[in-house]
Amino acid sequence: MVAATQSLDELCINSIRFLAIDAIEQAKSGHPGLPMGAAPMAFVLWDRFMRFNPKNPQWFNRDRFVLSAGHGSMLQYALLYLTGYDSVTLDDMKGFRQWGSRTPGHPENFETPGVEVTTGPLGQGIANGVGLAMAEAHLAAKFNKPDAEIVDHYTYVILGDGCNMEGISGEACSLAGHYGLGKLIALYDDNHISIDGSTDVAFTEDVSKRFESYGWHVIHVEDGNTDLEAIASAIAAAKAVTDKPSMIKVTTTIGYGAPNKQNTAGIHGAALGGEEIKLTRENLGWNYEPFEIPTDALDHARKAIERGASHEAGWNQTFATYKTQYPAEAAEFEQLLSGSLPEGWDAVLPTYTPADAAMATRKHSEKCLNLLAPGLPGLIGGSADLTHSNLTELKGLGDFQKGQYGNRNIHFGVREHAMGAICNGMALHGSGLIPYGATFLIFTDYMRAAIRLSALSLAGSIWVMTHDSIGQGEDGPTHQPIETLASLRAIPNLTVIRPADGNECSGAYKVAIDRAANHNPTLLAFTRQNVPNLAGTSLAGVAQGAYTIVDCDGTPDLILIGTGSEVSLCVTAAEKLALDGTKVRVVSMPAWDLFDVQDAAYQESVLPKAVTKRVAVEAASSFGWHKYVGTEGATVTIDRFGASAPGGTVMEKFGFTVDNVLATAKAVLG
Amino acid sequence: MVAATQSLDELCINSIRFLAIDAIEQAKSGHPGLPMGAAPMAFVLWDRFMRFNPKNPQWFNRDRFVLSAGHGSMLQYALLYLTGYDSVTLDDMKGFRQWGSRTPGHPENFETPGVEVTTGPLGQGIANGVGLAMAEAHLAAKFNKPDAEIVDHYTYVILGDGCNMEGISGEACSLAGHYGLGKLIALYDDNHISIDGSTDVAFTEDVSKRFESYGWHVIHVEDGNTDLEAIASAIAAAKAVTDKPSMIKVTTTIGYGAPNKQNTAGIHGAALGGEEIKLTRENLGWNYEPFEIPTDALDHARKAIERGASHEAGWNQTFATYKTQYPAEAAEFEQLLSGSLPEGWDAVLPTYTPADAAMATRKHSEKCLNLLAPGLPGLIGGSADLTHSNLTELKGLGDFQKGQYGNRNIHFGVREHAMGAICNGMALHGSGLIPYGATFLIFTDYMRAAIRLSALSLAGSIWVMTHDSIGQGEDGPTHQPIETLASLRAIPNLTVIRPADGNECSGAYKVAIDRAANHNPTLLAFTRQNVPNLAGTSLAGVAQGAYTIVDCDGTPDLILIGTGSEVSLCVTAAEKLALDGTKVRVVSMPAWDLFDVQDAAYQESVLPKAVTKRVAVEAASSFGWHKYVGTEGATVTIDRFGASAPGGTVMEKFGFTVDNVLATAKAVLG
Repeated sequence: MVAATQSLDELCINSIRFLAIDAIEQAKSGHPGLPMGAAPMAFVLWDRFMRFNPKNPQWFNRDRFVLSAGHGSMLQYALLYLTGYDSVTLDDMKGFRQWGSRTPGHPENFETPGVEVTTGPLGQGIANGVGLAMAEAHLAAKFNKPDAEIVDHYTYVILGDGCNMEGISGEACSLAGHYGLGKLIALYDDNHISIDGSTDVAFTEDVSKRFESYGWHVIHVEDGNTDLEAIASAIAAAKAVTDKPSMIKVTTTIGYGAPNKQNTAGIHGAALGGEEIKLTRENLGWNYEPFEIPTDALDHARKAIERGASHEAGWNQTFATYKTQYPAEAAEFEQLLSGSLPEGWDAVLPTYTPADAAMATRKHSEKCLNLLAPGLPGLIGGSADLTHSNLTELKGLGDFQKGQYGNRNIHFGVREHAMGAICNGMALHGSGLIPYGATFLIFTDYMRAAIRLSALSLAGSIWVMTHDSIGQGEDGPTHQPIETLASLRAIPNLTVIRPADGNECSGAYKVAIDRAANHNPTLLAFTRQNVPNLAGTSLAGVAQGAYTIVDCDGTPDLILIGTGSEVSLCVTAAEKLALDGTKVRVVSMPAWDLFDVQDAAYQESVLPKAVTKRVAVEAASSFGWHKYVGTEGATVTIDRFGASAPGGTVMEKFGFTVDNVLATAKAVLG
Repeated sequence: MVAATQSLDELCINSIRFLAIDAIEQAKSGHPGLPMGAAPMAFVLWDRFMRFNPKNPQWFNRDRFVLSAGHGSMLQYALLYLTGYDSVTLDDMKGFRQWGSRTPGHPENFETPGVEVTTGPLGQGIANGVGLAMAEAHLAAKFNKPDAEIVDHYTYVILGDGCNMEGISGEACSLAGHYGLGKLIALYDDNHISIDGSTDVAFTEDVSKRFESYGWHVIHVEDGNTDLEAIASAIAAAKAVTDKPSMIKVTTTIGYGAPNKQNTAGIHGAALGGEEIKLTRENLGWNYEPFEIPTDALDHARKAIERGASHEAGWNQTFATYKTQYPAEAAEFEQLLSGSLPEGWDAVLPTYTPADAAMATRKHSEKCLNLLAPGLPGLIGGSADLTHSNLTELKGLGDFQKGQYGNRNIHFGVREHAMGAICNGMALHGSGLIPYGATFLIFTDYMRAAIRLSALSLAGSIWVMTHDSIGQGEDGPTHQPIETLASLRAIPNLTVIRPADGNECSGAYKVAIDRAANHNPTLLAFTRQNVPNLAGTSLAGVAQGAYTIVDCDGTPDLILIGTGSEVSLCVTAAEKLALDGTKVRVVSMPAWDLFDVQDAAYQESVLPKAVTKRVAVEAASSFGWHKYVGTEGATVTIDRFGASAPGGTVMEKFGFTVDNVLATAKAVLG
């Protein structure tokens, strides 16, 4: 493999390889195999095709790059460094995987400018890529004019065998094929090795044929190690096919260049060690010190800076023309890109009084979505095949389909996990879109990894979850959440809101949209069944997480705390207890984490420490409630799986009745 | 469609359709579309091919049937009734989806004998089916003799468009193709309709081609509504291909026979209503009352009873021969099928003293698995491509592969969700197998729906999860569990154990294996990093959930409660506090739910109510801990996402140090 004189391309590619080798050796931790094998395809892509501005990583019209095989993070860091981003210096790479570095173990968009999405959990990146491409297609359809195409970029994804084994990638790629996302180009690093050894032990399907079955355009580069022109031709061919996404299978050798470790699982996820590094240097003719990059390579790669400035300048000119010709559209576009919400967007949120008819909170949600959509052009989303159960259709705004990308209702199919990652991708497109994804609350279990990533990676997705308790009814225990709320509340930075009625639904959307604009996700839990509108509820109360909706004179003897459909039980029970002279307060607590961040004085005003007799009522697990009811309190909750029967029956049989709340309250009062 | 005289087949098929129609109408809830469309394929399968004994639903060598499209449950209930199972009577069907009935909304194996697995959450059933087929292949390889094939059955699955959209089905079917599971036959009800309408809105891939890419044998029945012979030929052809699983795409009309509602989403999930039922009766020439089954049909279908008795008698004879010829194998086989554990199986579990070297609990787990495997022939499992990180290999017991089905190490590939459902399928094969599936703890998020189903459907799977905290280190926050333990502890009937050292690892396996034999799942959480062996820990303590490992004289001033790797911090902190005269108890609490079911006296003996100064120490979320530390206690926990750095550094930076435990304890002591 030794090249007497290396071309500039080879110098750059080997620079990537040795930056990965050296950084991982220094950290004694990391995954050198992928960067060494995928360096050629990545460098050809970044050097010859990708349009980006290293000095402005947020330039809107940049091509998006996703390293779905996130364990190969050093590939991306090396590319960022070589092409001149300020976010990754040589020192950053020397601090690879160390405390406080900008080069964490897996790419994290919130740590390192130039990284678009957070990858590592396999399959998420390619599904994020589908979301990024959908965002581009949507905005292009909405804003482009024949004489001024202001939205026009590709989404490139490098994924590996692991990504291709994960179900989420199948879901997302099937949908991408359905939508015909021509500007999505995936490069599959076909290296035949995963952690357990040869992919022969578990993964012998025909991946290309599978992608063809999804409707993708598929190309094979047989020698991804050295045939740079074949890689370039394949990418060019992929770009030329505009009505289908393209998958380029690039056959490579994992850990290419390491004479004893290449093509073994041993190089997938461990440093090479001094001796093998020495042999690899010899083998690849690399006479440079650790972290030393040949000047020629750096000069060549950093031409990206000049190119990038020119791309951005060209786009700025196009946009200037656009702004002159289409001032109204330009204003909407700029509003979106600003990330701030249009003035007064929340004025449409309705309020209710107890005189208004009882209604399921999922219907309140439908009303909110449809009232908000006209004033929030970034709001876009849909359901995983439960549109008319989740009630998430934006009426009159059309279906997002091939050739109809400007529409705002997305049919995700029965693909919850991909839906989650696609929404995250759309949010992280950074163009003011506010994506929402919907299914039954119980099926958050299918998309939990994506929900967690929305919270970790600051993706302002909104998760619209209906059928939020055993009140779901006849579908039975497979469809009835018990532990689901607790499991979601436990996720850091995910606000979970379970509104009690119409006012609280409006308040829930107020919080969720505000959070989305601030790059934080929110999960909304709505009932299937009707709930009455209560006195005392309010939009503002939701933002405080918990608040008093029924109070007594003086210090309460008892506090009843409810959420969602059970708040009305608390209110009725309180009325009955008051008749006997018991002083009862009712607290509605739609969002635990929002209450937890209120100041101590507010918390004390709602749940005074001195009042230790407390009962929480929620048709869900007791798990976590002891924080609020304490050791002298009690809960009316359900710590077993549900049962199939009409919702009202199930609720009654499991004790979600006024009588049982009263009995529990009396037991606590002693 | 009116047939002047209906054949016996037609009578039976229409009986299924009208039982579904009538039961769903009575319940005003359910999914008639699938039973009406899939009745022909299901009846042909059950009547002409499937071997089962209605009077002994547990007969070992029965063919397994899985309705992966579980919302069509009335199809299965109708079949169980017509073929003569005692588990579903006409009255049961009249009580469809009602409180206490044996006919819940979705098929539940724990409610209705004859139902093999619990379905409804889409895609789970087909993946369970892969597990059932793997169990059969394994036992056949292990026990069959040329002259006595005592293990020889098929696994049949009916799945729909929804199952095929879910990623889990792709994962499982890719693996099934890899393994060449010739006795797995899936019938795909290709009806072009899902809840959101035509599958054209989201699902236009070429499903047959996809299955071919997985290595399946694929057949298409073009008219699944009336061409019974084509269905029969396809099943026969599928049976004839023995080295590949078969997928029969059966094109049908959803809600076949309902003149106005067939082939619409309206019939997928709602009762037909009186008028449409009347028209359907006319259309299909059905002159019977609701729930009335023509005698001819019942007589014909119930020949299954005689056939079943004969099948079982034949098998009994084969087994009698086997027992004579191969008494040792027969004894092992009977031991397995008995479901009870071999005498003294747990005697091999090792114990430790503080003199033994510190070791990661994942290594203790490896040791336990390998010590147990020889004495537990049912133990079988593996990892989702992390074998050498999870340390789950059963050494010397070979890889389960095509043609090597008798081996006990399964490579699931990077397919966590399918792994979960496959393990559940193997457990629910009911043949004494104790399956385990492994990955990093964080990736339970990818398989959560299957873990939940193990707990709900009484599948004795063991979930072996390593890298159980931020101690995971360099991989960073995408790989570091925070809320994961809480989210799993919240699942009813899932025991979560986080052992502190070698003794507790042994205790954890003792509990997990016992629970598996009793059809309950257990999740084990092990460290990546070394932990010391502690004085006072014990196997028996684990079974009690929490127990005192360090105590003081008299009533403690303070109780430190730890789990897993943090117990040793508590022990050291207690030693230091004791030097100042503070009376400290240390409680190790590896399994919350096991403690919760201890009697009050035991609970009081470990955590006396009077001792309110308590500190819980766990490198995970505080969520849920207030139940044990109360309002006057505190936690040393982490309620934000982690960070990428060496594990020791991360632990220290986030306060998992003796000093911080001491500081927190002193603050609590006041």
